[in-house]
Amino acid sequence: MSSVTSLETVSSARYRDGMACLAGAVNIVTTDGAGGRAGFTASAVCSVTDTPPTLLVCVNESSSAGPIFALNEAICINTVSGVHEDLAMLFGGRTPMDERFTAAHWRVGASGAPVLLDSLVSFDCVIDSTKTVGTHRVLFCRVIDVEVGTQEGASVYFSRKFHQLPR
Amino acid sequence: MSSVTSLETVSSARYRDGMACLAGAVNIVTTDGAGGRAGFTASAVCSVTDTPPTLLVCVNESSSAGPIFALNEAICINTVSGVHEDLAMLFGGRTPMDERFTAAHWRVGASGAPVLLDSLVSFDCVIDSTKTVGTHRVLFCRVIDVEVGTQEGASVYFSRKFHQLPR
Repeated sequence: MSSVTSLETVSSARYRDGMACLAGAVNIVTTDGAGGRAGFTASAVCSVTDTPPTLLVCVNESSSAGPIFALNEAICINTVSGVHEDLAMLFGGRTPMDERFTAAHWRVGASGAPVLLDSLVSFDCVIDSTKTVGTHRVLFCRVIDVEVGTQEGASVYFSRKFHQLPR
Repeated sequence: MSSVTSLETVSSARYRDGMACLAGAVNIVTTDGAGGRAGFTASAVCSVTDTPPTLLVCVNESSSAGPIFALNEAICINTVSGVHEDLAMLFGGRTPMDERFTAAHWRVGASGAPVLLDSLVSFDCVIDSTKTVGTHRVLFCRVIDVEVGTQEGASVYFSRKFHQLPR
């Protein structure tokens, strides 16, 4: 046992090169509430269980959005198609929060979080619990509403670029 | 606050229809150790942080692999290309564990877990901590080795079928 747990961790650079091979959906993750409104782009989103419907999102605690998500309960995971790739770049950069939101159209979800109009799918959620791992906090989100859009295909990030995927 | 947390959760069926829109890499997740050898196919894999290099995998506790992963520390996440779609189907079904492994070629990783030869990328890991959410256990895995293969493209699961994605 101890021989396994004492094995050395790989370098961050080697890990990132490996992770570039893991294809993932592109999501704009938003919140609003006591901490204010914020949003960021994430590929680190996945399903945990459908009993009860729960997904998870990993947030960098030192990012501009990190402390805001720590203060709010409402969260919406907006999975995007190709039409929102520029928006995903904007939410993944250093643009001030208000400017990010003025670049697209939103409605307020049941949770209070901004729901992106014309997303591929939006999961409106309440943060149920969290777990901190290294630099990131993992948010476990109970799903209170799902809206499947009419977009034709998905945007997938793989090998450090966007790809289009038909339904 | 209480008005948000009291919002009703969506049905499992509606959640699954939404999740079918979330594209994801296809991974064969393996283990070996005191609990024995096991493996299953998962799309619920994502990066948590690169400091220290950590990824997570969600395992159904009531699956045949669930109790085995609970007894072991070694785990390998083998992300697959199109050449291993049949293998991914096999590891996602009800075939006995030994038969699953005889259908492909493996080496033993530094952790002791089986590493799939010719994977797109394999992350050899040690399970650091876990968190149970509903029917699933989330495994937080510290990465001790990364092997990037020579396969040309990724296999992505989206809209309830496999898709090929070039690099």
